[in-house]
Amino acid sequence: MSLIRGRFDKEADESVIAYSESISYDHVLYPYDIMGSKAHVSMLAKQGIVTEKEAKQIIDGLDKVLKELDEGTFKFDKDLEDIHISIEARLKELIGPVAGKLHTARSRNDQVALDIRLYTRAMIEETLIKIHELQKVIVAQAEKNKGVMMPGYTHMQLAQPVLLSHHLMAYFEMFDRDYQRFADAYYRVNISPLGSGALAGSPYNVDREWVAEQLEMDGVTQNSMDAVSDRDSILDYMSAAAICMMHISRMAEEIVLWTTNEFGFMELDDAYTTGSSIMPQKKNSDVAELGRGKTGRVYGNLNRMLTIMKGLPLSYNRDLQEDKEGLFDTVETLLLSLDVFKGMLETATYKPEAMKRSLKNDAILATDMADYLVMKGLPFRDAHRVVGQIVNYAQHHKCGILSLPLEKYKEFCELFEEDVKKINVSYSIRSRNITGGTAPVQVAKQIRLAKNYLAKREI
Amino acid sequence: MSLIRGRFDKEADESVIAYSESISYDHVLYPYDIMGSKAHVSMLAKQGIVTEKEAKQIIDGLDKVLKELDEGTFKFDKDLEDIHISIEARLKELIGPVAGKLHTARSRNDQVALDIRLYTRAMIEETLIKIHELQKVIVAQAEKNKGVMMPGYTHMQLAQPVLLSHHLMAYFEMFDRDYQRFADAYYRVNISPLGSGALAGSPYNVDREWVAEQLEMDGVTQNSMDAVSDRDSILDYMSAAAICMMHISRMAEEIVLWTTNEFGFMELDDAYTTGSSIMPQKKNSDVAELGRGKTGRVYGNLNRMLTIMKGLPLSYNRDLQEDKEGLFDTVETLLLSLDVFKGMLETATYKPEAMKRSLKNDAILATDMADYLVMKGLPFRDAHRVVGQIVNYAQHHKCGILSLPLEKYKEFCELFEEDVKKINVSYSIRSRNITGGTAPVQVAKQIRLAKNYLAKREI
Amino acid sequence: MSLIRGRFDKEADESVIAYSESISYDHVLYPYDIMGSKAHVSMLAKQGIVTEKEAKQIIDGLDKVLKELDEGTFKFDKDLEDIHISIEARLKELIGPVAGKLHTARSRNDQVALDIRLYTRAMIEETLIKIHELQKVIVAQAEKNKGVMMPGYTHMQLAQPVLLSHHLMAYFEMFDRDYQRFADAYYRVNISPLGSGALAGSPYNVDREWVAEQLEMDGVTQNSMDAVSDRDSILDYMSAAAICMMHISRMAEEIVLWTTNEFGFMELDDAYTTGSSIMPQKKNSDVAELGRGKTGRVYGNLNRMLTIMKGLPLSYNRDLQEDKEGLFDTVETLLLSLDVFKGMLETATYKPEAMKRSLKNDAILATDMADYLVMKGLPFRDAHRVVGQIVNYAQHHKCGILSLPLEKYKEFCELFEEDVKKINVSYSIRSRNITGGTAPVQVAKQIRLAKNYLAKREI
Amino acid sequence: MSLIRGRFDKEADESVIAYSESISYDHVLYPYDIMGSKAHVSMLAKQGIVTEKEAKQIIDGLDKVLKELDEGTFKFDKDLEDIHISIEARLKELIGPVAGKLHTARSRNDQVALDIRLYTRAMIEETLIKIHELQKVIVAQAEKNKGVMMPGYTHMQLAQPVLLSHHLMAYFEMFDRDYQRFADAYYRVNISPLGSGALAGSPYNVDREWVAEQLEMDGVTQNSMDAVSDRDSILDYMSAAAICMMHISRMAEEIVLWTTNEFGFMELDDAYTTGSSIMPQKKNSDVAELGRGKTGRVYGNLNRMLTIMKGLPLSYNRDLQEDKEGLFDTVETLLLSLDVFKGMLETATYKPEAMKRSLKNDAILATDMADYLVMKGLPFRDAHRVVGQIVNYAQHHKCGILSLPLEKYKEFCELFEEDVKKINVSYSIRSRNITGGTAPVQVAKQIRLAKNYLAKREI
Repeated sequence: MSLIRGRFDKEADESVIAYSESISYDHVLYPYDIMGSKAHVSMLAKQGIVTEKEAKQIIDGLDKVLKELDEGTFKFDKDLEDIHISIEARLKELIGPVAGKLHTARSRNDQVALDIRLYTRAMIEETLIKIHELQKVIVAQAEKNKGVMMPGYTHMQLAQPVLLSHHLMAYFEMFDRDYQRFADAYYRVNISPLGSGALAGSPYNVDREWVAEQLEMDGVTQNSMDAVSDRDSILDYMSAAAICMMHISRMAEEIVLWTTNEFGFMELDDAYTTGSSIMPQKKNSDVAELGRGKTGRVYGNLNRMLTIMKGLPLSYNRDLQEDKEGLFDTVETLLLSLDVFKGMLETATYKPEAMKRSLKNDAILATDMADYLVMKGLPFRDAHRVVGQIVNYAQHHKCGILSLPLEKYKEFCELFEEDVKKINVSYSIRSRNITGGTAPVQVAKQIRLAKNYLAKREI
Repeated sequence: MSLIRGRFDKEADESVIAYSESISYDHVLYPYDIMGSKAHVSMLAKQGIVTEKEAKQIIDGLDKVLKELDEGTFKFDKDLEDIHISIEARLKELIGPVAGKLHTARSRNDQVALDIRLYTRAMIEETLIKIHELQKVIVAQAEKNKGVMMPGYTHMQLAQPVLLSHHLMAYFEMFDRDYQRFADAYYRVNISPLGSGALAGSPYNVDREWVAEQLEMDGVTQNSMDAVSDRDSILDYMSAAAICMMHISRMAEEIVLWTTNEFGFMELDDAYTTGSSIMPQKKNSDVAELGRGKTGRVYGNLNRMLTIMKGLPLSYNRDLQEDKEGLFDTVETLLLSLDVFKGMLETATYKPEAMKRSLKNDAILATDMADYLVMKGLPFRDAHRVVGQIVNYAQHHKCGILSLPLEKYKEFCELFEEDVKKINVSYSIRSRNITGGTAPVQVAKQIRLAKNYLAKREI
Repeated sequence: MSLIRGRFDKEADESVIAYSESISYDHVLYPYDIMGSKAHVSMLAKQGIVTEKEAKQIIDGLDKVLKELDEGTFKFDKDLEDIHISIEARLKELIGPVAGKLHTARSRNDQVALDIRLYTRAMIEETLIKIHELQKVIVAQAEKNKGVMMPGYTHMQLAQPVLLSHHLMAYFEMFDRDYQRFADAYYRVNISPLGSGALAGSPYNVDREWVAEQLEMDGVTQNSMDAVSDRDSILDYMSAAAICMMHISRMAEEIVLWTTNEFGFMELDDAYTTGSSIMPQKKNSDVAELGRGKTGRVYGNLNRMLTIMKGLPLSYNRDLQEDKEGLFDTVETLLLSLDVFKGMLETATYKPEAMKRSLKNDAILATDMADYLVMKGLPFRDAHRVVGQIVNYAQHHKCGILSLPLEKYKEFCELFEEDVKKINVSYSIRSRNITGGTAPVQVAKQIRLAKNYLAKREI
Repeated sequence: MSLIRGRFDKEADESVIAYSESISYDHVLYPYDIMGSKAHVSMLAKQGIVTEKEAKQIIDGLDKVLKELDEGTFKFDKDLEDIHISIEARLKELIGPVAGKLHTARSRNDQVALDIRLYTRAMIEETLIKIHELQKVIVAQAEKNKGVMMPGYTHMQLAQPVLLSHHLMAYFEMFDRDYQRFADAYYRVNISPLGSGALAGSPYNVDREWVAEQLEMDGVTQNSMDAVSDRDSILDYMSAAAICMMHISRMAEEIVLWTTNEFGFMELDDAYTTGSSIMPQKKNSDVAELGRGKTGRVYGNLNRMLTIMKGLPLSYNRDLQEDKEGLFDTVETLLLSLDVFKGMLETATYKPEAMKRSLKNDAILATDMADYLVMKGLPFRDAHRVVGQIVNYAQHHKCGILSLPLEKYKEFCELFEEDVKKINVSYSIRSRNITGGTAPVQVAKQIRLAKNYLAKREI
């Protein structure tokens, strides 16, 4: 008979056990569960709720269970529902009935709330480190490819020339916002719910603040009914992860695009590509495609969790058990994605020649020509119209806009002078000399600042 | 070196293997993979592409692999990426190089498209059976509880009296639409993509129609590029499953509600409830709550798959590998939910006394009073207003609307006569004698028709 | 005082009116609401529940309201919550108190359920027509570009040569499944819920089947509690729309890709592109991008509706009012998308020269070379490996695989003979002569069948 | 001809204009657009890019346009695509060609990025205020209902007694996390992207930092390509809003539940309820239901935006135009929900008698009895089992657990003594005297701290 079915006349149906068990996935929580239990029982001893001797027995027992779990010698019993009950049952086998005192002044509701917070806290730390590592690789590639010019795109059409380093540093910014977002989540997760009991608090003389300190948490929750039914920290992680995976998916899309035969801007290391079962020539950017595809699961997991929480009355409801698999899957997917993209980016090679080929279409300099006219005194809207006509003319005559003679320009606008010939790709890039602009000096500054910033970041 | 990396100078990175493997979940497909392979190689022999002897060797080998997989003696090698490669590798160990002929005139792209279709077809069949079983239990409970009266609710407020059987049969209708929806999906999934090759079709003299017939499929796909990148049948299953889980979640919500102390309309069998780790008195409707919660994952999986497919250019992209886990999870969740809710419903007891208690608030008969006035000639809007005032008067005087004397009624409207006293719960229910209405005779008809219909359904 | 607040002592708060009104969007339903009301009142007269004269007055009045609404002279009063109450209020102004009889034997719950079904039915018809039109344009473009060869892609890498017509016809297949899906939804939506009353059916002697016939519906719902709270037909439309938009997003992605400077496979008509406010040379595929982006809203609307329905107990709950805006938005987005993509595709020009340029990379013929070896007797896996090595060799020597001399081939495999030289793009395409394959004769058959099929389709 | 189609030979198709216009919804941005334009042109003058006189003309013109827009006298022209072009066109009408200088050194890409940030910043401020107001009402109700005892629920089953104030304060905590989450988003949104140009920065000598200061922003973006294609701040708002609406949906669910006939814990003011078109007695919690239902749209909008952003390559793509309607809808829904729930809560009445009725089931005190035994020395697991048996016994004998004589208790466990009789609802509540617990002194502390905290918050 289950430990917690004292009032029942019969056992749960087999299908119910299969439907409600969580041991097949929640064993991930074991280090956090044991960490929490040890802190809890230490406090019980400090407060005289159990004796020091009992506490020692329990802590020693928990350490043994931890060792068994670490070493993989622990045998899970599917009938024991979840990791918390499993650990307690094993503890009882090891140390006898005193094990029953561990659950004093604690409910599974506050216990599991604590476990999830400790797990999420650890995973945020892991995530921050991996984002940091990816940012370092981005900066390194930006620095390595200093001076390489490429077309910048809007609507995937040639727009204006930019530096490759500038393009890469755009991702540095995205991941930096991700870093901040996870850091914000950290402070909200790192609060102890222990002592909230099943829903109403504990009638024992427990010291919640002391347990929180042992666990290096920043404080304790202020309302027990909220504490046992709050899963905001999971949603915080999942929202931040969805946005971060979105950034990864954008990078992935570009890698897939840039490694096409037609673009050819980038070549991936063999270790980050795969072949085809039928086409011997294939070298596919599978990893990038998988990253793009896995975005779906991270979005789906967020959607799942929001759906679960909608309209749940206070306090704990069993729907909440469904919080874990999605979280674990999101964490695993994000951490692995950050790793793999780091490796892929680090070992990738960029192809300046291919970029130069795309830059041959000199219509990409039309904005520079319009800006030239503005600097000669024409209102921007008129300059835009004049250059639009020149582009149209050049296209109808199948030539580049830079190849037209000055006289032809003058037919469109009297303000053109000899110095219009200074306009070229390099000029265009250099001219955008403004914070956040693509001029070499600005990009160098971005890189320098980024390196300093990463070097100083405490993680 | 992987079977398919002939053109590469080095192996894939460790993290890439972890990121891209699918063997940890796609082994679910093995019976379908082997079924498809056997049909394929039979056809190759029939067409003279392999010899009969080679075909026999391969088929015998595949049967051995199947047996090993069924018996759990097959050892998966994580480096072998996916179930298709794993089976082929094992086949080679068993029968030698002739195994290499199995992949003639086939690509993993059309192979996996076939496997998913065969799997989904089988799962639709399974789903139809389980919906059918659940419908049977609903009808049985409706029949068993014939005559029990209860309040019908809108906005969770007392609205009009109904029969419990009528309420239950509402779910029969919902699940019947689900049945139809899955049946519609069946016809679209049961088409063979084999022969589409990697993307462009096969240069071999294969007989696609013959293979399809062997696999009891209704036809072959008409465009190879579509065939290898189409995952509509997964989306068909997932959409239908999302709607079906939504229906389950509605039933779940009512079970949770009806088993509260305050409603008390229903009692679940002990086998379908669980206890609390801390509160000894608890008997929780965990199963219903889990069903409600698991709706989130089924929604999330649909969301995942739609996200994956968005904006994918032709033809196969590796993002598509991410199609499987969500599908498997949805299938497993739905099938188990249908099972568990069937059992829970079958063993549940309804509490007519509690329902009667809720019916004591006679404002639930206000519509009947308005209809009474309409039948005496008052336009409905006026009747509605008059009765609204009576309700308001009764509430201010803390009495029921039926307890007022005829004279009081007449103060509100002259049309009231002695026969207004016929209005009571039973009268109200009997009066709704119309197709789909709650009158006993109509509900009996609904039940009778449903039973005939289920009895005749071929599944 | 609102028509329906007879029992209340005060009016609703201003903010509540703003929160709960639906008149700002549900006026879309007016033709369906009036159509339903006319059929309802005709039936009331036929059954003797109202007199023929009353019915005529009401029908004439409704026709006047319809005319005012069609002509835009109707003034909506925000305080009148929704379109149903607004129409009834206007009717009362026009014909006096007899208007109050229209609502006899009907509740807003069954009325609105009917309106949504009539609306959705009409929108499915509209959608089917627009899908049909788009399919016609696809076939026309496939026919017009007969013979144009292009690279087929998997993983966006060159895979095998295909016909452009073959590529286009892949979309014909996708939209054909969409057509079927909407047609399936049609049969489930076209059932009349009228007579279900508020939740329990009607106490009047109404003839539900007769009303359904007047409205050209295929039958009546069988359970009143389900009927007033069922929104499956909205979900059916929304799921089908999500899948259809997904197909549109795939086409959109390819248009964006193919109109890049680097691919250049396609040119859009000026009427389907837009410019830039700053870059005078830009010609952006905005329409395709918007189609891709609008996929998000159609997914989001499905997600919204599933979320709304989750866990709603029987029967009608006000949450259901939130069903409409998402549906209307999805319908409008899908219909406009189908229109715009039709026009964009119809006026687009394909660029065979650019496709030929991409086909120059002859590694795209590696599969053909492997198939060649298989036909000479080598098991496929070995052939794959051999050709992989040739590809690798050619790449290291910066030459094409077709440019190597026969002797070099023989170093990799003795089976190569003089006839290996027949392998080229055209040979490759012709060789895939199988149902659904890319060989010209097969693609011609696909086009012919598609044209016949479209010509015969009744819509 | 559109202002920006200089290079085109023809106009956009009608359907394309309908598909791509945003003026029907983006006019919401006008105050932010004009605010940004005024700061921009001031800077252009400061830097000598336009003359002081030109700047003054433009600023005066913009002020006139703003006035027209505020007063509703501005006539939008649908052909003018969006709010930015519309304002500029009107400016030109008012002040002539000098208007063309406003767009100097600016692109629609950085302009719209700025507008969205200014809008989102303002909406965050609005949201913070409304959350604050709702929190105040929660605290006020908690204070007003001090001392009211009610059952606490887990799994919607009676769990342990709590104070109503404690239950209410759980929502204070939820909304407080929402407040923090929006405040975190504030700092990330309040950064100026102006000067990023179309994608590469500006070639003019602009002073980005100075413009940012004029707009009271905290800094400028560091990478132009990121800045024009970043929509993270929208996602930050939308994620926070989804979580906040989830909290509202939980409160909504409880209101719907508590106002049922069966619970009856709460009565809403007439101003926050609505009636039925057919059932005169109905008083529905429509507002709460709508809040629960509108959660769907806020979730759907988040899903929409994540879908839009997935896989977008750098830099600006037109898909991004689809960012606005979802954001506006989420903002409007959230702000109105916070308002309406505040009003509904403020005017609601709680029903202590009904709560007392539910507390009569004394099994709710089983945990207290178990804790009693633990304090007498029994390990918790044994105490739990003993009390479970007592509950079972009492249930089989249809009596309360408190009504059994001491001797009966002793049959289950020798440790029971006379003082077990002290256990009752009030004792149970008082005993949970721990931070976050439900004891009156703790709840009073929670309320006191909350009031101080709200009083000190700067908003």
